[in-house]
Amino acid sequence: MHVDELPTPALIIEADAFEHNLATMAAVHPGSRLRPHVKAHKTTAIARAQAAHGHRGFTCATPREVLGMAAAGLGHDLLLANEVLDLARLRAMGAAQADAQITVAVDSPETIAAAAAAGLANVLIDVDIGLPRCGCLPTEAGRLADLARSKGLTVRGVMGYEGHLMMVRDRVEQRARVDAAVALLLQAHADVGGEIVSSGGTGTHDLHDTTRPRGVNEVQAGSYALMDTQYSSVGFPFRQACFVVGTVIASKASLAVADVGLKALGMDHGNPSIDGATVRFCSDEHITFASDEGANPPVDARVRVIPAHIDPTMALHDTAWLVRGDEVIDRWPIDLRGW
Amino acid sequence: MHVDELPTPALIIEADAFEHNLATMAAVHPGSRLRPHVKAHKTTAIARAQAAHGHRGFTCATPREVLGMAAAGLGHDLLLANEVLDLARLRAMGAAQADAQITVAVDSPETIAAAAAAGLANVLIDVDIGLPRCGCLPTEAGRLADLARSKGLTVRGVMGYEGHLMMVRDRVEQRARVDAAVALLLQAHADVGGEIVSSGGTGTHDLHDTTRPRGVNEVQAGSYALMDTQYSSVGFPFRQACFVVGTVIASKASLAVADVGLKALGMDHGNPSIDGATVRFCSDEHITFASDEGANPPVDARVRVIPAHIDPTMALHDTAWLVRGDEVIDRWPIDLRGW
Repeated sequence: MHVDELPTPALIIEADAFEHNLATMAAVHPGSRLRPHVKAHKTTAIARAQAAHGHRGFTCATPREVLGMAAAGLGHDLLLANEVLDLARLRAMGAAQADAQITVAVDSPETIAAAAAAGLANVLIDVDIGLPRCGCLPTEAGRLADLARSKGLTVRGVMGYEGHLMMVRDRVEQRARVDAAVALLLQAHADVGGEIVSSGGTGTHDLHDTTRPRGVNEVQAGSYALMDTQYSSVGFPFRQACFVVGTVIASKASLAVADVGLKALGMDHGNPSIDGATVRFCSDEHITFASDEGANPPVDARVRVIPAHIDPTMALHDTAWLVRGDEVIDRWPIDLRGW
Repeated sequence: MHVDELPTPALIIEADAFEHNLATMAAVHPGSRLRPHVKAHKTTAIARAQAAHGHRGFTCATPREVLGMAAAGLGHDLLLANEVLDLARLRAMGAAQADAQITVAVDSPETIAAAAAAGLANVLIDVDIGLPRCGCLPTEAGRLADLARSKGLTVRGVMGYEGHLMMVRDRVEQRARVDAAVALLLQAHADVGGEIVSSGGTGTHDLHDTTRPRGVNEVQAGSYALMDTQYSSVGFPFRQACFVVGTVIASKASLAVADVGLKALGMDHGNPSIDGATVRFCSDEHITFASDEGANPPVDARVRVIPAHIDPTMALHDTAWLVRGDEVIDRWPIDLRGW
């Protein structure tokens, strides 16, 4: 099928850019030193491609992602890097341990009790290293690990996500702040033990030396595979691989309108982009834009919209189309959506 | 089932507020004088409740909404208030005319040709009355109507959406600008003919007198049924009826975190709200907030998050739970998502 035959809005992935991104990251953090984050794509076919590049452990943000990965045979080593209190979902993950190794993040007596009650075997202590969100104080981590072990849980190590540092523009400052955050994580790890010290994201992936003994030994990056305009602005060697293709439904002298609206785009990072055009605003089912030079594209032309934030964009589509040049070469269900 | 038993994030609709909103709007624009916009909820069960209040015609934004409404037996008079070039989808709507009356908006020779080619019977001329998006010039409307009739299409009238005026805060200024926009629409209608003059939204619903001869005779409001923080800020007599319920997964002195993130919320209007708390930021699966007074809610407590924009929030959930007090009284599939 030709890409222009796709019904729009159509979320497409350019195979060559995608493969480039996977290979580039695998060269920096090969094998188990990268634990790709599934939340960035919610697609088992993409996880399978990451596994083919040598990464057999994955990070998940929701029970649905964990259960879907396990069901897809990608359950070699799944980390739910998030706190869950829902006993039904925890028990479902407990049952899935027959086919998958599952480790859940805990940061409180309540989350430890819930994991133990659900029959989960493995936990990891989630440590607050500066992002004002989940995670225990570094000084509490050892006590929580002891509590978990007292309930029969295996404590595999620590994680800490420096999400507040992903977009620090001055890379010298960013490195210093990441190092300080990692120092907190290592302080916690000294008290917790276990083989895993997990941290990082696409925005800090190159600031973690995963070869260093007693340092961060795995990075949780996800966005690098598909990219978005926010991460592209940093200058990493990853290419934009994901676009939402639209059809121009109105074209005037001053503007054009395509059928890619805010129900097809994660909007928390602001408007998406169109190469060679200025985006004016998005409505539920429309993007209004104007060409930077020359006439606006005519009615029925196709445009490629670049998401500002890839993760929530994927959550709005049920299908990703893999394309090479003008040819659609595969159809991937975005099969890990929901909770 | 008790509302606290729902798996979270859970999109709930408070039945009493919802019924109040439907009754309040039906008193202002009864029967065919309101053509409720389905894009605001994407849920046939909600449309059915609106029909029970006397509104038998509906506005849709996508072919999926039209086809789903027709399949649900709600096809008395469906207006697709959007331009579509996709022949396969237009033909599907053509085929659905056996069970439904379907009218599609057109604003160009291309959209007229597509509607005719697909075997659609009815169109309506979409007129640009100030929102920089779709719609023909008012002075072009008559010519397009003639073109449509020359292709065998029935032209049912005109529509124009003053979306740029929904949030004008000075209501005197808003009324003057709405009147000027409507004057453009009526100018077009004089050239087009047909029985329908369709306009308006929740933000301007009370500025259209749908009883006036030769004026706007139907309003396309949608958000009024469920509401969001943006429309609540205006002071209309509609109540907040939709919430996304979350579970607190972490609680500290300075903040708490619940499992309602930006994959559960339309974010284009900014952060959602929590009564009695200040929202700091949303991540993919988290909302970080702090109580305005007193301690933050403990781990495993429930919180109700109020969406800033209802339409794209509905597009992220597959289920709406109808609740009265603490009791869940119905489960409504959000069955018109996608395109």
